[in-house]
Amino acid sequence: MSKHKCTIGVDFGTESGRAVLVDVTDGQEIATAVHPYGDGVIDETLPGTPGTANISLPPDFALQNPADYMEVLRVTIPAVLRKSGADPGDVIGVGTDFTACTMMPIDKKGTPLCMKPEWRNNPYAWVKIWKHHAAQPEANRLNEIARERGEKWLSRYGGKISSEWLFPKMWETLNKAPQVYEAADRYIEGADWIVLQLTGQERRNSCTAGYKAIWSKREGYPSDDFFAALDPRLRHVVDEKLSREIYPLGHRAGGLTQEMAAMTGLRPGTAVPVGNVDAHVSVPAATVVEPGRMVIIMGTSNCHMVLGARENIVEGMCGVVEDGIIPGYFGFEAGQSCVGDHFAWCVENCVPAGYRDEAERQGVSRHQLLEEKAAQQKPGEHGLVALDWWNGNRSVLVDVDLTGLLVGATLVTRPEDIYRALIEATAFGTRVIIESFENSGVAVNEIVACGGLPERNKLLMQVYSDVTGREIRVAATAQAGALGGGLFAAVAAGKEAGGYDTIFEAAKHMARLKDVVYRPNPAHKAVYDQLYAEYLKLHDYFGRGQNNVMKRLKALRQQALAGA
Amino acid sequence: MSKHKCTIGVDFGTESGRAVLVDVTDGQEIATAVHPYGDGVIDETLPGTPGTANISLPPDFALQNPADYMEVLRVTIPAVLRKSGADPGDVIGVGTDFTACTMMPIDKKGTPLCMKPEWRNNPYAWVKIWKHHAAQPEANRLNEIARERGEKWLSRYGGKISSEWLFPKMWETLNKAPQVYEAADRYIEGADWIVLQLTGQERRNSCTAGYKAIWSKREGYPSDDFFAALDPRLRHVVDEKLSREIYPLGHRAGGLTQEMAAMTGLRPGTAVPVGNVDAHVSVPAATVVEPGRMVIIMGTSNCHMVLGARENIVEGMCGVVEDGIIPGYFGFEAGQSCVGDHFAWCVENCVPAGYRDEAERQGVSRHQLLEEKAAQQKPGEHGLVALDWWNGNRSVLVDVDLTGLLVGATLVTRPEDIYRALIEATAFGTRVIIESFENSGVAVNEIVACGGLPERNKLLMQVYSDVTGREIRVAATAQAGALGGGLFAAVAAGKEAGGYDTIFEAAKHMARLKDVVYRPNPAHKAVYDQLYAEYLKLHDYFGRGQNNVMKRLKALRQQALAGA
Repeated sequence: MSKHKCTIGVDFGTESGRAVLVDVTDGQEIATAVHPYGDGVIDETLPGTPGTANISLPPDFALQNPADYMEVLRVTIPAVLRKSGADPGDVIGVGTDFTACTMMPIDKKGTPLCMKPEWRNNPYAWVKIWKHHAAQPEANRLNEIARERGEKWLSRYGGKISSEWLFPKMWETLNKAPQVYEAADRYIEGADWIVLQLTGQERRNSCTAGYKAIWSKREGYPSDDFFAALDPRLRHVVDEKLSREIYPLGHRAGGLTQEMAAMTGLRPGTAVPVGNVDAHVSVPAATVVEPGRMVIIMGTSNCHMVLGARENIVEGMCGVVEDGIIPGYFGFEAGQSCVGDHFAWCVENCVPAGYRDEAERQGVSRHQLLEEKAAQQKPGEHGLVALDWWNGNRSVLVDVDLTGLLVGATLVTRPEDIYRALIEATAFGTRVIIESFENSGVAVNEIVACGGLPERNKLLMQVYSDVTGREIRVAATAQAGALGGGLFAAVAAGKEAGGYDTIFEAAKHMARLKDVVYRPNPAHKAVYDQLYAEYLKLHDYFGRGQNNVMKRLKALRQQALAGA
Repeated sequence: MSKHKCTIGVDFGTESGRAVLVDVTDGQEIATAVHPYGDGVIDETLPGTPGTANISLPPDFALQNPADYMEVLRVTIPAVLRKSGADPGDVIGVGTDFTACTMMPIDKKGTPLCMKPEWRNNPYAWVKIWKHHAAQPEANRLNEIARERGEKWLSRYGGKISSEWLFPKMWETLNKAPQVYEAADRYIEGADWIVLQLTGQERRNSCTAGYKAIWSKREGYPSDDFFAALDPRLRHVVDEKLSREIYPLGHRAGGLTQEMAAMTGLRPGTAVPVGNVDAHVSVPAATVVEPGRMVIIMGTSNCHMVLGARENIVEGMCGVVEDGIIPGYFGFEAGQSCVGDHFAWCVENCVPAGYRDEAERQGVSRHQLLEEKAAQQKPGEHGLVALDWWNGNRSVLVDVDLTGLLVGATLVTRPEDIYRALIEATAFGTRVIIESFENSGVAVNEIVACGGLPERNKLLMQVYSDVTGREIRVAATAQAGALGGGLFAAVAAGKEAGGYDTIFEAAKHMARLKDVVYRPNPAHKAVYDQLYAEYLKLHDYFGRGQNNVMKRLKALRQQALAGA
């Protein structure tokens, strides 16, 4: 039992939510609790209502049930209190972070429409999570119109707004289910909705607004004229369905309500900072509060975050937002859509029965077996190069219709060869992103990795170091999102209450690195430079319009599936 | 027990030999016997001599032990006599066919050097079989010199001599083991060596000479000057190590020797035709003795054979040889290096444990399970295109350094998708070959398939029909090579002895088709036309020098393996 002041960070991920109780003095993670979402990611049929038929979802849908978010609070916060033995009076703040853009229509009271009986059978009334990909037509049209109109904000987002972001998803609902759009009093990010539940206060945060809703501190949202050019019904979308009141990160949104205090076992009035995004909140948790050090959150996908002093325009970045990560800096974000998912695909689909048997005999996972076999190879030995686009390309091509490629296969190609080639492909993709930043004047001298993968896969870390030619350090925490929530909670509580006045102070005391350092092996780097040249040539050939075979194959697939 | 006259065909394959006893009247296959080669394909270490260390082979070696060929005769001929109850007096001929180029150095008496104690530890003294790929440097140099000298015969072989053929393999031995080359009295094809064993007569056949040793009926071998340009020591290679006496197919090489008669249970003097190649001998066994109908032998690789009245020059064909398949016609051959091998690779490496379990529950093979799942798809549905170059490209690019490619993979790509894409890729490769023939004036109106695959894989046959837009019939025999040997044995025996005077007569009576006909589905054909356009674009981009990434990756792999 800690005698120090504590905060709790709650990280709302894709499959589950996780709470961590953290010592404010030194960042020690005293207790953790995880709760999986009961309905998980909803991508085939809506959760059934007794007595009704299942409602099938269109392709590319990915929804969630907001009741699952409340359940995370109800289960995990009491659990960390219990496990740690902490006195609720010593918990000075609760910070949250969320996947984004994960958005929902709510009524006047903040109740999600899908929780109301009259709307629960309509898929568009549910939470569309980040990987909901059905708004691509709207995203394409939005980008086209923005380009035609010469909208200046477009360059802050690498020249392209993703179909994963707020306005394409809202517009999709307006097009496909206008009655839902009409019925919604407001649209809100999950990050802000959970804060509204905790505090009773709607305090929209600058991170999701900046990165997912085209908002900037200096210029606000795009003009009403722009929205009207998309669709006359959208002219007043910001004022009708959103809000122009945006709060900076670390700002105290409010205190815990009586009701929430009763549900969680915390004290009413416990400080709650505004919401934040899982990747962004991880940056200070990985010790990074200054330019030059890139944080890569490696999980199912990769998220690359780096700070800069100026608003440089970088090809294919996801966004640059002033104060979007750390106050006083421009926060740059880029990403790769498919990293851990990639390796999981390989393990699911390319690991023959004999390997499973071998893994079982050795008492290791199939991932570990593949890693072990792949680690015995020298760079270049497998003779393969892959394009890591199994789930499209986020940066720098910003194109979800790109697909995966593997070249160099022979009859002696083995599963571990493909596994290693996929690892390398994601490292090459990261190098493209780093070079894009550096070519635009944003320095990336060193990498700090966090997320699930760096913990588990040493080969991956060494390959990234060899391919990028940079030293890689690893965040000490295995749960950077939740820890980041704890950091901002300490800032929201403030020094007087036993927390900190700035995120710089909080990071200095609460965030740490592991001792391990991955350093590039010059001989490996030399081979990878050659393989990277091959990757780049294929990247540009297939990704920049010389051969749009990937898009045509996708279209043929759609036709075949549609029975055309 | 048949009262009719019979012949025996013996087919020497890659892993085993197979004898079939055939009724000369109607081609009925009365008895079959198979015997696997004791030493199989020797590609890692030479078969051990007691008390000596194993001798490791260099990369790309593929050898055989000629004693295994004799064992096939010793075991299988008595077996088919026994099973059929045929009277040896009714067996009027024994015909053989062989893989090619499968060549060996022999001494004056015809004994392979590897069977002599002083040479058996030298890998170059053994039989190099068709898929021995270590003579690529020699093949490259030979092609370069032939092009520089403007050798006319080059165009008969699609502009390139394969490293699998006779002269590159002989030259490899001269370069790597000159003492073996010197010690060899002669070099001989397995096809001719086995006939030499059966009859005591060296009667080299026009098929292997034409397709594998650059010989033609009208012009003979390349000039001594050409060989001297390769290497002065090769100036008299033909006269010193080969023979200019070449005999047409169906020609009676001689009668069975006393010794062979005793070993096999047949009568001394039983007619033996000159040797033949497995693919080529299958053509009349598949009923084809006229132009316009292409025979595709589908097994580990595909071999495409078609007859023509003129010596057309076709890009990337393996060869055109007058009387090389059927007397009176030019026989055209093309091929694909990797077909059944391809699917086997997929099953070995891309079938996860869950599929094995499912196959076991259903009591089917993993191949069958994949076929069943893949057959449920529509063309285009999997969203993939592959280049079928896992083992290089034989026709039309004639480039063993090309490798496999898969494009279009996503996180929902499943093993059956890859399996189907590989099937389609080999069908696209066949279409490239057919179009190459037709563009050069060699008609291909219909396809007759034979070999192991058409028996087993209906999906494959339908895909080939849909992709090529041609009807496909299937040879009735499951053992076209051995049956073809039986056909030519009947011709060697002649009408007087109860056989036939020509292969046309023999084919008319002894060869049949199955009732099944695969007809192109127009809707599928339309989708495949689009996919084929994608295949062709990738084929040319990666295969014709626009992006030599495959070769560079192979070179990097060699360097890595060499520890460079």
